[in-house]
Amino acid sequence: MTRVVIVGAGFGGLATMSALAHQDVEITLIDKHNFATFQPLLYQVATAGLNPGDVAFPIRTLLRKQKGVTFRQGMLAGVDSAANEISLVDGARVPYDFLVLAMGATTNFFGIPGAEEHCHGIYTLDEALAVRNKVFSLFERAASQGIKGNAMTTIVIGGGATGVEMAGALAELKLRAFRTDYPSLDPAQARVILIEARERLLGAFSPELSKYASAELKGRGVEVRLNTEVKSVTDAGVHLANGEFIDSRLVIWSAGVGVSKQFSDLGLPQGRQGRFEVGDDLRVVGHENIFAVGDIAATLESDGSLVPQLAQPAIQTGTHVAKMIQALITSMPTTQFVYRNKGTMATIGRNAAVAELTNGMKLTGSTAWLAWLALHLLTLLGVRNRLSVLLNWSWHYISWGRGPRVILGG
Amino acid sequence: MTRVVIVGAGFGGLATMSALAHQDVEITLIDKHNFATFQPLLYQVATAGLNPGDVAFPIRTLLRKQKGVTFRQGMLAGVDSAANEISLVDGARVPYDFLVLAMGATTNFFGIPGAEEHCHGIYTLDEALAVRNKVFSLFERAASQGIKGNAMTTIVIGGGATGVEMAGALAELKLRAFRTDYPSLDPAQARVILIEARERLLGAFSPELSKYASAELKGRGVEVRLNTEVKSVTDAGVHLANGEFIDSRLVIWSAGVGVSKQFSDLGLPQGRQGRFEVGDDLRVVGHENIFAVGDIAATLESDGSLVPQLAQPAIQTGTHVAKMIQALITSMPTTQFVYRNKGTMATIGRNAAVAELTNGMKLTGSTAWLAWLALHLLTLLGVRNRLSVLLNWSWHYISWGRGPRVILGG
Repeated sequence: MTRVVIVGAGFGGLATMSALAHQDVEITLIDKHNFATFQPLLYQVATAGLNPGDVAFPIRTLLRKQKGVTFRQGMLAGVDSAANEISLVDGARVPYDFLVLAMGATTNFFGIPGAEEHCHGIYTLDEALAVRNKVFSLFERAASQGIKGNAMTTIVIGGGATGVEMAGALAELKLRAFRTDYPSLDPAQARVILIEARERLLGAFSPELSKYASAELKGRGVEVRLNTEVKSVTDAGVHLANGEFIDSRLVIWSAGVGVSKQFSDLGLPQGRQGRFEVGDDLRVVGHENIFAVGDIAATLESDGSLVPQLAQPAIQTGTHVAKMIQALITSMPTTQFVYRNKGTMATIGRNAAVAELTNGMKLTGSTAWLAWLALHLLTLLGVRNRLSVLLNWSWHYISWGRGPRVILGG
Repeated sequence: MTRVVIVGAGFGGLATMSALAHQDVEITLIDKHNFATFQPLLYQVATAGLNPGDVAFPIRTLLRKQKGVTFRQGMLAGVDSAANEISLVDGARVPYDFLVLAMGATTNFFGIPGAEEHCHGIYTLDEALAVRNKVFSLFERAASQGIKGNAMTTIVIGGGATGVEMAGALAELKLRAFRTDYPSLDPAQARVILIEARERLLGAFSPELSKYASAELKGRGVEVRLNTEVKSVTDAGVHLANGEFIDSRLVIWSAGVGVSKQFSDLGLPQGRQGRFEVGDDLRVVGHENIFAVGDIAATLESDGSLVPQLAQPAIQTGTHVAKMIQALITSMPTTQFVYRNKGTMATIGRNAAVAELTNGMKLTGSTAWLAWLALHLLTLLGVRNRLSVLLNWSWHYISWGRGPRVILGG
């Protein structure tokens, strides 16, 4: 039987698997974790709106409904395309007829000095938990020992959707938490600063939504700094290109993602942002039976730009690759991948979000917020997780956030 | 105003706080974590029945309803009883008029060679999470690389309530998880061995309940080894006193608790098991204004034996100390603490538990199990946590355990 090996159980890899699972193929799904992460909600784990378990779904549980899929926990070490085999870090070798690379991206620090050492990413569950622990540890220390200087200033670098969501959630957490749990602390002393190098937030959205987002964030106490470039980051804070220094104990990096260094040694062609170069049928350039999907693939839109590194393109490329594999098995020609932009959304906080649909419709405020909630609940994997998230969110809304704000591993 | 300092936010410390909170005193509550842990359910976190957030409750959220209580995250470093002041590890000094020591106990390895290095405790949330990660990592490795020898054997040392609950939950997890998530693994190869030095399990219960527990555990595939002493533990397994060696990658220690070493330097009198010696009004011997409650106090029953290290005695001693402090403030005499045994319970697994009430009534089977569920839900802190646990348990019962079985911290 045809052996398909999928590396990575994110949106892209899982989409390929689902679309292929009832076909006559033998699938091996490989991931370094034993769970799939619902990345769009990681910022809520980081700000204690959700439990880690709410956004993590055990992969083996997913596979129960799939026929012919084997899961294997492991890290990709090498691709031997001559032998049609991959190797894993634990030494195992897994043969394939078709290989689908779906390892996703990781935080990209663009070589800014000190950024990698001193910034927190929020791209994995562990990273999100680390941010949560840090936020509450800073609050605890400030409450116990008195505030010293900018001991509670949080800086978010990068004003895209992730940065806007993170800054909004931090501002809200601070307002709520200080009123109820830290009455001795002054919210004004816990500054949240959002830094964006370009002249507006949410560059992927239309300018009027950027304006709305800026205004909403400012109304919630976020200091929005546009046209502001970061020169370097130290353990004491952030040096800006204009010479200014901002003292901060917690710097969050949401300025962009890139391909993990470890995948640069695979011997596969890498294009812009380090993403694997793919043909229009999503096969990795120079390879007949290796595909790349999701964030790790340099998939092009019809206008020649790269598709954004979001859930939708990952799912669409994953589904397309499943069709391509079926075509190749039956000796049919492959077809061109066409990205269908279904619109984008970003949430700013309670009752505030932005959504831009493909028909040009733009939503803001509670409407956009409720649409955002509904969409994310529907796409969240697993009934249990959905119920748990619904419970947490409802509770959050009613009680203004008792949330799961425990400092673990401490 | 009278300053009461309570160190430790477990059952004992929180009971003192609640009973004193509406009195005319200024309370400082100190704990090394920012959350209170519901320890009786930690074994369910360890076996992926519950999320960590379900059994952890943020202390500041608890305090919202209390007047005159300040929380401070910190670790006790010293007690200066001459100056009526304690010092914390971070260097702070906190003055008191009355001091309540409620730091609880920790795993006690009784000096068995290798036990501390190679055994996992399940006494804190971090320990429970570590066990969960280990269990699933062993399963993943076995599924990926094939089982080698006793690669999946789990040994639980100590057949008291914690050991019985842990062994029962592990056996159940294995049966359920293997059928649904690891069909390639053979349940018979994942042995669960419960080792008890004495001639029966659940020494605190009557012999007929011990018998029932043994039979139920055996029916669920647990190997119960009575009259079996552990000589030493290595990274390869457990050496028994009879010369036998059992190969195992995961050894859980539930053979007893003791007082943490760090509290032996406080200069306070320590009695049996290292617990602080207290008079019958629960004042630490030799001190007029220092009390000890819960697991850390060598509180005596009327027959001269030590009260068990469980939630009930901790709550009762905590409440008694609150009354004593009120008495001393109003120059009234202190009174003797009398422990009221309200009965004990332990769960073995789905539809199986034991309960022994003080009127001599004994329950087993589903009745005891439902009583156990109801009691633990009612005493679990916080409505949100109760709902979340109810959700997890119901889901567990219906779906036979999709549970939150993710391996965190990679």
